[in-house]
Amino acid sequence: MTDYSTSMRLKLPVVCIVLEVILIILFGLVVEYNDDTDAKKWDKYNRTTTQNLENEFYARYPSFQDVHVMIFIGFGFLMTFLQRYGFSSVGFNFLIAAFSLQWATLMQGFLHGLHHGKIHVGVESMINADFCTGSVLISFGAVLGKTSPVQMLIMAIFEVALFAVNEYILLSLLNARDAGGSMTIHTFGAYFGLMVTRVLYRPNLDKSKHRNSSVYHSDLFAMIGTIYLWMFWPSFNSAITAIGDDQHRTALNTYYSLAACTLATYAFSALVNHEGKLDMVHIQNAALAGGVAVGTAGEMMLTPFGSMIVGFLAGTISVLGYKYLTPVLESKLKIQDTCGVHNLHGMPGVMGAIVGSITAAAASASVYGNGMKEVFPEVFNKNFTASTQAVMQIASLAVTLGMALIGGLIVGFILKLPIYGAPPDTLCFEDSVYWEVPGEEEGHDELTTVKSADESEKLRG
Amino acid sequence: MTDYSTSMRLKLPVVCIVLEVILIILFGLVVEYNDDTDAKKWDKYNRTTTQNLENEFYARYPSFQDVHVMIFIGFGFLMTFLQRYGFSSVGFNFLIAAFSLQWATLMQGFLHGLHHGKIHVGVESMINADFCTGSVLISFGAVLGKTSPVQMLIMAIFEVALFAVNEYILLSLLNARDAGGSMTIHTFGAYFGLMVTRVLYRPNLDKSKHRNSSVYHSDLFAMIGTIYLWMFWPSFNSAITAIGDDQHRTALNTYYSLAACTLATYAFSALVNHEGKLDMVHIQNAALAGGVAVGTAGEMMLTPFGSMIVGFLAGTISVLGYKYLTPVLESKLKIQDTCGVHNLHGMPGVMGAIVGSITAAAASASVYGNGMKEVFPEVFNKNFTASTQAVMQIASLAVTLGMALIGGLIVGFILKLPIYGAPPDTLCFEDSVYWEVPGEEEGHDELTTVKSADESEKLRG
Amino acid sequence: MTDYSTSMRLKLPVVCIVLEVILIILFGLVVEYNDDTDAKKWDKYNRTTTQNLENEFYARYPSFQDVHVMIFIGFGFLMTFLQRYGFSSVGFNFLIAAFSLQWATLMQGFLHGLHHGKIHVGVESMINADFCTGSVLISFGAVLGKTSPVQMLIMAIFEVALFAVNEYILLSLLNARDAGGSMTIHTFGAYFGLMVTRVLYRPNLDKSKHRNSSVYHSDLFAMIGTIYLWMFWPSFNSAITAIGDDQHRTALNTYYSLAACTLATYAFSALVNHEGKLDMVHIQNAALAGGVAVGTAGEMMLTPFGSMIVGFLAGTISVLGYKYLTPVLESKLKIQDTCGVHNLHGMPGVMGAIVGSITAAAASASVYGNGMKEVFPEVFNKNFTASTQAVMQIASLAVTLGMALIGGLIVGFILKLPIYGAPPDTLCFEDSVYWEVPGEEEGHDELTTVKSADESEKLRG
Repeated sequence: MTDYSTSMRLKLPVVCIVLEVILIILFGLVVEYNDDTDAKKWDKYNRTTTQNLENEFYARYPSFQDVHVMIFIGFGFLMTFLQRYGFSSVGFNFLIAAFSLQWATLMQGFLHGLHHGKIHVGVESMINADFCTGSVLISFGAVLGKTSPVQMLIMAIFEVALFAVNEYILLSLLNARDAGGSMTIHTFGAYFGLMVTRVLYRPNLDKSKHRNSSVYHSDLFAMIGTIYLWMFWPSFNSAITAIGDDQHRTALNTYYSLAACTLATYAFSALVNHEGKLDMVHIQNAALAGGVAVGTAGEMMLTPFGSMIVGFLAGTISVLGYKYLTPVLESKLKIQDTCGVHNLHGMPGVMGAIVGSITAAAASASVYGNGMKEVFPEVFNKNFTASTQAVMQIASLAVTLGMALIGGLIVGFILKLPIYGAPPDTLCFEDSVYWEVPGEEEGHDELTTVKSADESEKLRG
Repeated sequence: MTDYSTSMRLKLPVVCIVLEVILIILFGLVVEYNDDTDAKKWDKYNRTTTQNLENEFYARYPSFQDVHVMIFIGFGFLMTFLQRYGFSSVGFNFLIAAFSLQWATLMQGFLHGLHHGKIHVGVESMINADFCTGSVLISFGAVLGKTSPVQMLIMAIFEVALFAVNEYILLSLLNARDAGGSMTIHTFGAYFGLMVTRVLYRPNLDKSKHRNSSVYHSDLFAMIGTIYLWMFWPSFNSAITAIGDDQHRTALNTYYSLAACTLATYAFSALVNHEGKLDMVHIQNAALAGGVAVGTAGEMMLTPFGSMIVGFLAGTISVLGYKYLTPVLESKLKIQDTCGVHNLHGMPGVMGAIVGSITAAAASASVYGNGMKEVFPEVFNKNFTASTQAVMQIASLAVTLGMALIGGLIVGFILKLPIYGAPPDTLCFEDSVYWEVPGEEEGHDELTTVKSADESEKLRG
Repeated sequence: MTDYSTSMRLKLPVVCIVLEVILIILFGLVVEYNDDTDAKKWDKYNRTTTQNLENEFYARYPSFQDVHVMIFIGFGFLMTFLQRYGFSSVGFNFLIAAFSLQWATLMQGFLHGLHHGKIHVGVESMINADFCTGSVLISFGAVLGKTSPVQMLIMAIFEVALFAVNEYILLSLLNARDAGGSMTIHTFGAYFGLMVTRVLYRPNLDKSKHRNSSVYHSDLFAMIGTIYLWMFWPSFNSAITAIGDDQHRTALNTYYSLAACTLATYAFSALVNHEGKLDMVHIQNAALAGGVAVGTAGEMMLTPFGSMIVGFLAGTISVLGYKYLTPVLESKLKIQDTCGVHNLHGMPGVMGAIVGSITAAAASASVYGNGMKEVFPEVFNKNFTASTQAVMQIASLAVTLGMALIGGLIVGFILKLPIYGAPPDTLCFEDSVYWEVPGEEEGHDELTTVKSADESEKLRG
């Protein structure tokens, strides 16, 4: 894939400005405050303090902010592990996310219920938009280092739209449950991205191989991303579950799943290494698989016991995937998965869908009582048996995989056009293609520079 | 500006201890728990759980913590972009903020309402103190690298006091609205700091020019600051708005403004660069201008549409300011603005004030309903028309600019006295003036050291 | 202490897997959702929104997340100050914490009240488990750089159990108050760790001395930890206090204590340095002592005035401890305290216990009113006088010191067995013993590498 120029001088401004202007116009036409954010509607009633505290803001905004941190710090810094791609990792993550959350608000609004032709926004739409954005960022992880920011914005346009359609099919047509997005976010984002990277396959990527690895400090920056994702995953999975025990239980289950996952990750990371040394790639990624794998079942009565089993298995398959599967995917299937999203989001996402289906199949009134109303409303309303719910969950996984793979295939070919300023094979994983990188001449450390200067003098002397 | 000594051995301890002792004495004399933090007063009633949850802590503490992160991590790390000033950026930010929040509690308490001669404290005073602190840190950004910590503490003493007076004039005398502080915090802090740095003008600052730039890792550290400021700005602007739809709407408006601002920032950053490369200075700063620019109007019925327009324009003028205005300010007006606070806080702050005034002028009962009570109480109570409110908003901007410029002028001259241990022109932007800096001898990386050692041997051999 | 091998190939997987399997089995046998997380129990009542918002999740989850950040980011990054131990600091912190929080849930559950033989879990157990984990991480700080991850997991097994017993004695038998854990967490963790490191004394540790210090960037990473701990300490101390004024007051007191502590830290750090330069070790650690020192009294009517005095003194003794006491402890008592936990957690913890006792002694109905019920229930119920409460507080300190020292002694000898793969004296404070460390060959900075390559050529030429 050779482009005429990697300069973003015109491409990026044109794309950003056109997209933002379209967004602003569409927001002007169809977006309204919802009842909880509109001064007139909310204050129609003379509310007491307690009633004001029932504003959805108070139950959901702390969760939103945790999710927001995961999207911008978590995903952004997780990808800074590359030695010379930190600006792009954090910076393009920032750009793509800022665009996607606006576009997702519109697409999800269109599909999940207009109010007299208007989209109503509030903290719940903010969380949902961030969720959709997360999916795009997962796909970004698969192609990291090999694409231009313009390419990523084009990808986001299509992926957000497809995400919203898939989400609509799952949640509104199939009546599946997926509060933490094992299917809608992780499985979709991973397989979409894997297909895109397959289509964008670069046979000569080894020309940039020396840059496709970490250095000491870049791995520490990446750990900032990892730890934030790990800590706030309970908030992610519980952010849009029902108010009351549901949010509480989802956070709890996710917390236990992640803790068990972490021990599995350390165990298998040491085990698969010949010298028994731990590998930062595993710790940074596989320790998070437990959050992905309870994305569907987290709100259900999975129990801490069940959550820990799921987390332990997720960490295990994720490490094994990094060790044994990723090299095969690259050599045999020509899938160059920079961040290994197949191991962190793909397989654990599928596992999460299956765990969700099994847990749904086991749902009974004796366990859920009236709580069935929030967790499985179709079962509560006798529209579904627990088995039907389970089937719908598995059907949702199949739909998601299909949408992701076909969507990724088409979008991959769109992104293959040589017009987006993608980097040449020799300059992948390199910030200086798209960024003014400081200190090129002097070294990034004054002290080193000083010393080098001395040495140079000695050399000359 | 030459000082006799930059040693902080006596200066800093004396200033810190004297200030803290005075603070402690004043707190002992005049500060009391408010009704929500006092055991006796709160528990006077036999409260139910719901009533206990009405304690202001629950509505405001999450916002407070987000603001707190912005002050200490956000501002602190944003300023670590300089290659050799990371300790001072985070460390002096920490010191100045820890002092300012205590002092602000007193000054704001004196001016915004004593209760029988006592200042009442609780989560709202904590947020307000952090807000005032933010203003001081903005000014710190203007003089970054050129001042001693003692100088900054002296500046904080005066700036906090003036901030409180200005805030009092705006909110209590003029009845202006400014929940997110476009005027009180950003405009005031920026122009105060710009005037201080003007008075402290160093004609020979280019002696430290090689240190007044970033290196690769310092830019990544700075992005931690940027992203946290960006994510939590919705909490900042909504932290002290009324409970209910007001907080919710303010957060939402800010979120959209920032998202649009980010796209504008990337667009114009690429556009103004000859090679079409993105500039970290723009991304780190201009992407935040959208939060500043809806600081006043964020709580109003600005709509997402309006917020996005404001954010887009703010990002645009901020990038253009960095590119075209900052060099002119330095060469023509002798304003050495290290962090470019004029572009991030100055112009967007003024813009925010104007947007606030326009939005106030457009306020009508048909849009706000009873919600007018919280957003524009004077209009609701028929003391003001919407136009009067708009005039008061603009008058507030004028007062703020006047207070900031005159205050900055006077304080600048006070800070010019050669007694505070400011660094010489040759040692600006340099941590080792005030800090024990590690690894001076060995280089900051063991590996590099090892290699260098080898090389030295080769050289000798 | 020489081990046969530092390879973790079998040791670590066996220990992690065995421990996690045992945890999963025990969780399966004895752990249940509590009333606030169980679908059936919570939804037994037909709750309104307001009643759903009474779910403990809403009052405590934001605090929990702040505590969680302190445990994983705060402690983890605080310890990255060492130049070549960043992976281990963050990574082992992560592993130990993920194990400890599961194990603590069981131990605390067994001791603090079974429900028909079952442990009930929810957000409060999550906070308590994180608290116990904090204690283990404090001990980790004492032995940092000198132990293997297996050793740390073994230490955690015992320390968590002892922590739970000590906590039970203090809170349930002696009816002491210690919401922020000055005694249970800080004093216990510090003296336990100090005794362990005493037993593990390495006479030849100076062989690794060149690595037992910071470099420029590692100190900046450590500041991330420091600032997060500092900001969220108000949430830590208030996380499990009673809902209402108690949480509010505790956060407020802690906030003021920390602010005052910070000024004392800067003052004394400059004062004790011959050149009047600030020392990052002091800033990173001593500025936090104010949070430790109000861990017990923070929920009491300490007043902002009292909090600031306590914070100021805590910062002072902490800096003086780093400067004058730590070297003596090492040379005379053979206590090699890597992070100086004695200065940050030990002395301030003891001080916090004493402050708590004095504040308890001063408790009176005229100050607390009915609020006495939550702060000192035994005094409110006339079981104790205020003096008795004060005595119980001091007795608690004595018990804690005894438990910590004896426990640390025994566990130290267990950890001395040469079977855990501890590093040799020559490879302490070195990541590459346990981690695949990148860039060993090429230097961690591409730019440097490029330059070095050029230089090498010149050398050859």
